[in-house]
Amino acid sequence: MTTAPAKRFPAASRLRYMDAPIRDVLGPARELERQGHKVLKLNIGDPDAYDFVPPEPLQQALRDAAGQGRYADSEGQADIRQAIARYEKELRGVELRPEDVVFTAGVSEALQFLFGAMLEPGDEILVPGPAYPQYLGVTSFYGAVPVEYPSTPQNGWIPRIEDIASRVTPRTKAIAVISPNNPTGAVYPRATIQAIARLAQERGLVLIADDIYSELVFEGDGVAPSPAQEPGPCVILNGFSKNWLVPGWRAGYIAFKHENGELAEIREGVLKQARSRLSASYPIQLALANALQARAPHIPELRRKLRERAEIVVKRVAETPNLALSPPGGAFYALVGIRGLYPEQVREGDTSPARHPKPGNKYATDKEWVLGLLKEEKVLVVHGSGFGQSAAGHFRTVILPPPETLHEAFDRIIRFADRAAKP
Amino acid sequence: MTTAPAKRFPAASRLRYMDAPIRDVLGPARELERQGHKVLKLNIGDPDAYDFVPPEPLQQALRDAAGQGRYADSEGQADIRQAIARYEKELRGVELRPEDVVFTAGVSEALQFLFGAMLEPGDEILVPGPAYPQYLGVTSFYGAVPVEYPSTPQNGWIPRIEDIASRVTPRTKAIAVISPNNPTGAVYPRATIQAIARLAQERGLVLIADDIYSELVFEGDGVAPSPAQEPGPCVILNGFSKNWLVPGWRAGYIAFKHENGELAEIREGVLKQARSRLSASYPIQLALANALQARAPHIPELRRKLRERAEIVVKRVAETPNLALSPPGGAFYALVGIRGLYPEQVREGDTSPARHPKPGNKYATDKEWVLGLLKEEKVLVVHGSGFGQSAAGHFRTVILPPPETLHEAFDRIIRFADRAAKP
Repeated sequence: MTTAPAKRFPAASRLRYMDAPIRDVLGPARELERQGHKVLKLNIGDPDAYDFVPPEPLQQALRDAAGQGRYADSEGQADIRQAIARYEKELRGVELRPEDVVFTAGVSEALQFLFGAMLEPGDEILVPGPAYPQYLGVTSFYGAVPVEYPSTPQNGWIPRIEDIASRVTPRTKAIAVISPNNPTGAVYPRATIQAIARLAQERGLVLIADDIYSELVFEGDGVAPSPAQEPGPCVILNGFSKNWLVPGWRAGYIAFKHENGELAEIREGVLKQARSRLSASYPIQLALANALQARAPHIPELRRKLRERAEIVVKRVAETPNLALSPPGGAFYALVGIRGLYPEQVREGDTSPARHPKPGNKYATDKEWVLGLLKEEKVLVVHGSGFGQSAAGHFRTVILPPPETLHEAFDRIIRFADRAAKP
Repeated sequence: MTTAPAKRFPAASRLRYMDAPIRDVLGPARELERQGHKVLKLNIGDPDAYDFVPPEPLQQALRDAAGQGRYADSEGQADIRQAIARYEKELRGVELRPEDVVFTAGVSEALQFLFGAMLEPGDEILVPGPAYPQYLGVTSFYGAVPVEYPSTPQNGWIPRIEDIASRVTPRTKAIAVISPNNPTGAVYPRATIQAIARLAQERGLVLIADDIYSELVFEGDGVAPSPAQEPGPCVILNGFSKNWLVPGWRAGYIAFKHENGELAEIREGVLKQARSRLSASYPIQLALANALQARAPHIPELRRKLRERAEIVVKRVAETPNLALSPPGGAFYALVGIRGLYPEQVREGDTSPARHPKPGNKYATDKEWVLGLLKEEKVLVVHGSGFGQSAAGHFRTVILPPPETLHEAFDRIIRFADRAAKP
């Protein structure tokens, strides 16, 4: 045998459309930091990157678990699964059997398991547009097709049921609801949730409730309506990253609400993948199981701070005609329109073109605008088009930083937006 | 619209062949425990299930990290990646750039990422037979085909290079080496490793070194030869589960050794998946990065205990003609032949059928034998056929329990084996 020439080994084609725009913009930011610049990062939904820390009882619970090295049960330990079932019941009346709960390394792993257990190549899945990128990436990883149901700032980023129903095809397998939404911060009213749940039942679709921000609503009782509260089967994706302030602990779950076992095969598919990876982190789930014995005492204060910071963002955006915002109702984000780049809708009955000259912008796309902002003002946000076409012409900022940081960031953002806008 | 009848949602076909026999035998064992029986579990490679605990400095490092909630970098924090590169160099002279190291939730996640980044449907990958089940499961999950290169107890479970070379086809994409091996405990001699590495280079195959047990060799300097030490590109899968006694922490890595960037596309495919799941656990990797500043002081004592316990298993198996064992040289396992169930090879030149009557067994398969052992003697091991055809007629036991437990378990196993054997 002769030695073949050195070759580059190719990557598999399933990765072609798997991008992570939130993390992808980090490259240029890190480059600036290497050059000695300080970058204000408003790009990632991580409260611990700002002035939030894990609640002390949870920290203590992890310290107490540090001596435990062994594998956990693949599906998660019985005590954390029971604690989750109890939490779902107490928080919002959702009845779950512990055996229908699987502890995962965050919602990320839960979503990966779910789509791996459910999607055949060519299947379609309805996802909110703008979309959280992992929903697009993991779907395409499995050869399936994410179909966005649109929402617009004019509607407060709440989708219309007819825009969802019209996208159901014979290949549609599931419909995902993310409320409060990332990247828009929209909290869907119960009527919308009910209509979507009904649609799923009528059309035989798997209903997916991504409830990761469900306790972080700024108004009312602070808890968002969930598809899981409606009649019929529902797959719940949830976790502790956001409301327990530990995104880096990778602690989430997938739960199957199905009175008649409708989701049993998909659950078994999830369990097979869970067994294949042996176990999620044992000390992490042990710590959470202990902490969950009490309802999270820090959440009201967390909500208060989030509301206060969201209000700052709303107020600052209103200072310039060159930015626009449909105020978020929950979660960590605001999706801000860039004048001249997003399609502005003329108010009904007010069609005078003179009063609505088509605005322009120095930058051709939201991504170029975001990279310009980074370069000129050292503020990092994420381009809206990274969340799909519905968010093109916007940027996503987190509302998480403390007030003084937010003000500093928006001083710079407004300055830049005004320079970039062309009347 | 009318309401469709309740339906069961089907699972995706990619899961058809994804089984986890090691965990699958747990069901009947748990049932016995529910009935109040105490089961001696020798089924899972988890030292912390016996008398091993995580080293105290590592426990302390996790306690110190318990206040950290934030996301880690998707590829792992710079400090753990540097520590891993240093470790690989110091342990066995493998040169890695930190940017070629990705921290993962155990080797399980590393393998998942690698196969996801590399395998197209219909591709073949050469894996050791007997095989660690995840190699079979994840391969079939991606529509690819695991092809086992066989090994036999007569050869000390060391494969012959011609049995590997003859299985290379135009669809072969990669060859995986697991040494010390799970489930056989075989440590491949350097000559075998070299021959496999050469074959990979000649045939343009991705060479995969699963080195998770590489520091747990009973003889010599305690470190197994690795394909990563040979010339040419190599993907290393390794982690801290076994040698740092923290399998349940989910801490591993994948590293790309490639002087000429041959693996750059696969690395990018791995990174895409790492970004999609955002991050591995931050406190866990922080703790390990700190602990890794020192070489693991506990490893010599760990090796000594493993050797002592392996010797007990070897000695006990020799007490009965109804069990057979090629002694393990490393790792946590022994693969024991069940007389009458595995194909016994007549010694060369000794062909008298009278001296070798075909033995029988009360049980038709190794799985039935294992379930019989569980039922009658309350000892749980794993059936060999769960590791593929090469291990049929065997059972895998861990060698991890303390001496008194091992003796108790083998009292029962031998009793059962003698009852089950039919001359």
